[in-house]
Amino acid sequence: MRRTRFDDAPCPIARVTDLFGDWWTPLVLRDAMFGVTRFDDFQRELGMSRAVLSQRLNRLVDEGLMEKVPYQHHPVRHDYVLTEWGRASWSVLVAMWRYGADHLWPDGDGPPLELTFRDDGAPIEPMVIDGRTGRRLELDDITVQRR
Amino acid sequence: MRRTRFDDAPCPIARVTDLFGDWWTPLVLRDAMFGVTRFDDFQRELGMSRAVLSQRLNRLVDEGLMEKVPYQHHPVRHDYVLTEWGRASWSVLVAMWRYGADHLWPDGDGPPLELTFRDDGAPIEPMVIDGRTGRRLELDDITVQRR
Repeated sequence: MRRTRFDDAPCPIARVTDLFGDWWTPLVLRDAMFGVTRFDDFQRELGMSRAVLSQRLNRLVDEGLMEKVPYQHHPVRHDYVLTEWGRASWSVLVAMWRYGADHLWPDGDGPPLELTFRDDGAPIEPMVIDGRTGRRLELDDITVQRR
Repeated sequence: MRRTRFDDAPCPIARVTDLFGDWWTPLVLRDAMFGVTRFDDFQRELGMSRAVLSQRLNRLVDEGLMEKVPYQHHPVRHDYVLTEWGRASWSVLVAMWRYGADHLWPDGDGPPLELTFRDDGAPIEPMVIDGRTGRRLELDDITVQRR
């Protein structure tokens, strides 16, 4: 059954839902951002079926978030490498991280993992601001207008 | 077929994927944030089947992101209202907005809609920073550690 598509919706949230709403896709992107490139490594890390992984990786390649780079020719084998566009999705994943860490561990318990700066190991607390003015954002500040 | 669950995964991205990976869910949350509360209004706005909408709303209620508030008693009818926890997911949606707006309109064309400040109508450019230090984040700055 083909699901409804949102890829020509006027709302950017709808288009990203179309892209990321493929279940598993954020986790494939996450692992790619932390250095996984090989089909078998994705499969082992994520414990997902090879058929579903293959479908997800192919969609990411088709959409331009990843590219296949041959590392062996007989037989041909590929690394799956994020494009700039694929790498740019880190901000969505980091917003997911913050929301999950704050809200999906009951009893005030946090996750066993934390985001940290690579250089000094300090914990990262992702927060969304307006890049133009530096204002912190709250839901009540935001509305949507036609351009 | 019951899909694989990630709701007890150690990674916050996996837990949010479990929650939002229900296709349509980000769009239901989006509409709720912009004031939709009635079943029929969600259904009309989103053009989705009543069965799927009912399943998505029920999951959001079960997970604590929405609550059902009766507005009529004979017969009983409910508003679906975001809880604080549901409202907090705005930051994920806004990160999705930015990514979609930057990357999912070909030819440098932007979306016909823009995020603006409610008070002065200025456009919003959502950006993820570290809330503790104010540092802008880039993917290469970020790593994950065990706590």
